[in-house]
Amino acid sequence: MFNRVHHLGIAVRDIDAAITLYQSVGGTLIGREFTVDGKVELAMLDLGGGSRIEPISPATPDSFLHRWLDERGEGLHHVAYAVDDISASLADLKAQGYELIDEVPRPGFGGHLIAFIQPASTMGALWELVQD
Amino acid sequence: MFNRVHHLGIAVRDIDAAITLYQSVGGTLIGREFTVDGKVELAMLDLGGGSRIEPISPATPDSFLHRWLDERGEGLHHVAYAVDDISASLADLKAQGYELIDEVPRPGFGGHLIAFIQPASTMGALWELVQD
Repeated sequence: MFNRVHHLGIAVRDIDAAITLYQSVGGTLIGREFTVDGKVELAMLDLGGGSRIEPISPATPDSFLHRWLDERGEGLHHVAYAVDDISASLADLKAQGYELIDEVPRPGFGGHLIAFIQPASTMGALWELVQD
Repeated sequence: MFNRVHHLGIAVRDIDAAITLYQSVGGTLIGREFTVDGKVELAMLDLGGGSRIEPISPATPDSFLHRWLDERGEGLHHVAYAVDDISASLADLKAQGYELIDEVPRPGFGGHLIAFIQPASTMGALWELVQD
């Protein structure tokens, strides 16, 4: 069902510092933007071989990411998997018993459709689906 | 310096359940083995497109992973980057000010040389280098 890892999301307090960090090991900045609700700033870096790193940082005082960072600190946040048909994949996961955070796909980085899955049903790792 | 993401390490309590989980979304089991010291069991799964997932689980009562799981729960543990020359990459990272966990590379999955970097110097994400 999953084609490959699309990107790896990393929660940080300072997105400029994170961009500099990943550039220091060979990363190339593809772009940076805000989520549709404006509450999270994100950047996408190409680490080579199709591997992408996505630093994410809270952009407003009420961003959910503040609580996440306060509780867990900076670090690995989610892993995104590329799928061909996100609605079909969500239906498949739901039929298998996985609990969905987003029942309906919504726009993510670059306008791609995305949806998150409850980490309680994936042994703790937060999964994102991306229709590539 | 980094060529691509080599694999994504995921800490779990039940490695058989984790293998079943990633097979349910299209993963293919490449192999499973114990670390050289016998304290951690790991599996490697191919998720397609060169993307690999590595569930890791404590194998002895004194495994460091018990404390990690007790403190943080199951979930994303480390991200491994493929490099051409691991000794040269470690020297480069050290010269840039990164703090190394392993000053000298050691054998990891499949006998490949690996080394870990202190997450305090990488904005919280635990990095592993793999000489591929």
